[in-house]
Amino acid sequence: MTDDRRSAGAPTLEDVARAAGVSRATVSRVINGVRNVDPAIQEVVRQAVSVTGYAPNRAARSLVTRRADAVALVVSGAGVEAEAEAGVGAEAEAGSGAGRAGGGSRATTGGGGSFTAQVFADPFFGRVVTGVVDYLRPRGMHPVLMFAETSRARDEVVAYLRQGSADGALVVSTHAEDPLPGLLTEAGLAAVLFARPARPVPISYVDLAHQDGARLAAEHLLARGCRRPATISGPLDVPAGRARLTGFRDTLARHGHAYIPVAEGRFTQESGEAAMERLLAEHPDLDGVFAANDLMATGACHVLREHGRRVPEDVAVVGFDDSSAALACRPPLTTVRQPVEAMAAEMARLLLDRPPGPSSPATSVIFEPELVVRASA
Amino acid sequence: MTDDRRSAGAPTLEDVARAAGVSRATVSRVINGVRNVDPAIQEVVRQAVSVTGYAPNRAARSLVTRRADAVALVVSGAGVEAEAEAGVGAEAEAGSGAGRAGGGSRATTGGGGSFTAQVFADPFFGRVVTGVVDYLRPRGMHPVLMFAETSRARDEVVAYLRQGSADGALVVSTHAEDPLPGLLTEAGLAAVLFARPARPVPISYVDLAHQDGARLAAEHLLARGCRRPATISGPLDVPAGRARLTGFRDTLARHGHAYIPVAEGRFTQESGEAAMERLLAEHPDLDGVFAANDLMATGACHVLREHGRRVPEDVAVVGFDDSSAALACRPPLTTVRQPVEAMAAEMARLLLDRPPGPSSPATSVIFEPELVVRASA
Repeated sequence: MTDDRRSAGAPTLEDVARAAGVSRATVSRVINGVRNVDPAIQEVVRQAVSVTGYAPNRAARSLVTRRADAVALVVSGAGVEAEAEAGVGAEAEAGSGAGRAGGGSRATTGGGGSFTAQVFADPFFGRVVTGVVDYLRPRGMHPVLMFAETSRARDEVVAYLRQGSADGALVVSTHAEDPLPGLLTEAGLAAVLFARPARPVPISYVDLAHQDGARLAAEHLLARGCRRPATISGPLDVPAGRARLTGFRDTLARHGHAYIPVAEGRFTQESGEAAMERLLAEHPDLDGVFAANDLMATGACHVLREHGRRVPEDVAVVGFDDSSAALACRPPLTTVRQPVEAMAAEMARLLLDRPPGPSSPATSVIFEPELVVRASA
Repeated sequence: MTDDRRSAGAPTLEDVARAAGVSRATVSRVINGVRNVDPAIQEVVRQAVSVTGYAPNRAARSLVTRRADAVALVVSGAGVEAEAEAGVGAEAEAGSGAGRAGGGSRATTGGGGSFTAQVFADPFFGRVVTGVVDYLRPRGMHPVLMFAETSRARDEVVAYLRQGSADGALVVSTHAEDPLPGLLTEAGLAAVLFARPARPVPISYVDLAHQDGARLAAEHLLARGCRRPATISGPLDVPAGRARLTGFRDTLARHGHAYIPVAEGRFTQESGEAAMERLLAEHPDLDGVFAANDLMATGACHVLREHGRRVPEDVAVVGFDDSSAALACRPPLTTVRQPVEAMAAEMARLLLDRPPGPSSPATSVIFEPELVVRASA
């Protein structure tokens, strides 16, 4: 854009100095947070800034403070070099088949379309944005939204952080094989992940006690009197997918259920429908289903209804996440709540509150799930 | 963040100059796009930048280019001064009752929660982000996500743009009374809206031919043999809500249908359910429903099924938007497609391609809707 447009009538540092009755240098020191300025003078300058509507040029201030006051919110995938050649246009991974989520329970392979389109088809990402924004806003900071599903896009993210355009990265990984966490730690850049990385990398993260969540689901189905429970798992190459299956199976085993039918899904509604069809075909007498996220549980409810099974009378269904999909489903889903907004806010807090210095150790914060009982089980 | 962390081992301008065998000044001129540099030397410098992994400090470059290479993507509401006092925390408007959308068809008052949470409960916003990101990425630009539902938050957006942190704003307004478009034009800031503003403001926008879309819905219901069509409208203080109702009514009037029952909704699934209940109570013999967005159509399908009406055999249902909700619905919705991604990309193009100078005239681009026939009608 042209500078004329931006600076049309914009108040200057001189205007502030004049209004405050102090020198330009004093205004500059107050604005840039230099210490040893008389508090009374600081207040006068702040009022003058407010009255004049002066907005310091952020680029200039960044040079002084060495802070961008911005955070990169990165949704990353696992595209490799060859896919990057297909362009940043981003349909590179649409055809890659298995949709794997790096740790949480978000669907990333809907009916094709660009990576960005697939990402936002899942209510999970909106909740992450909500949590991040609600934490950053009161601090005068904003998230820069970036996507990194190809090699080229990952390089862009690393370069963006290196050049100081953001004060660190909040990363939501959609694939178990995502190389971005490793690239960020190698480059010595500040970053926090949503969910434990599938490969061990010394990087901070927030996560949920997934096994505990699955235990809550199993105990609820047992308490309802379910005798033949089955499960639609998430992708099993993902820590969260495996942990939810393990937690469900282990709890039922402790109650004498030696064998639990499993159909693997990909955290999408369609994969939940397909998995439910398989389970019904092989185990027509099942009376309870734990789906590892709400979208798959919604798909399961659709298929059960099409087969004339009533939910919850004939088959009880429990989801996972407590996303907007749980409320939109008919019947509304009994589900295991993952406090995504609070987890995302904590991710931002970990990034911004970390001790200074290049070698602060990686840390983790694990949240506890909660059972939310509605109509489906 | 600390500078140590960011610059740990980061290559410098000197490293590039050494690798290229040219002066620092030459490197600087190439990086900042100064003309009259021998193309061969430009190429040598570019290779040296690539080999060394040098990333120029963006703040420093911004000072030279006067460009931020960032665009603010703003979701705005209509909070007034008093609400702003409730804090930027943003629940100020959760209790304000009527959810009005500034022009498109997005739901903004779900079951409470923060403004940001309400925004992302509607698949519409993810589609806007997708279109914007898909346009910006190949240009090396990224959206900074901002929310502006209170007076204080609006001031922050204006200040952010004034200080040059972004090269303009893409604005999605969720309320008819939103003052942000007016504030931006008054401040002489570059901005483009998604959908025509409810109040006349000299600002560029993209929009859909809403009446044509509603005409497609009406003609489809008539062609199916519907004799007693009704409609669930969007909020009628919003241009898009009014236009869709007008288009539907006018088309049916031309086919002899003098009176069409209407129940007003708020673009949310719940409001669609409530509207469908009212329509069924007053017009139990209706055989076709046009809902002004897919979320309301989904709600209508739920209620119709609960009342034992088959969709589409007893009552045909047509939605609007062709969002992910249309595919998730059972039966999948016949709907009017609004090409939100393409519209959002065009919004970004209008912002970035506008002629330089403070007084480029406002322009508008109107997209044509399309009927997508699935199972619900």
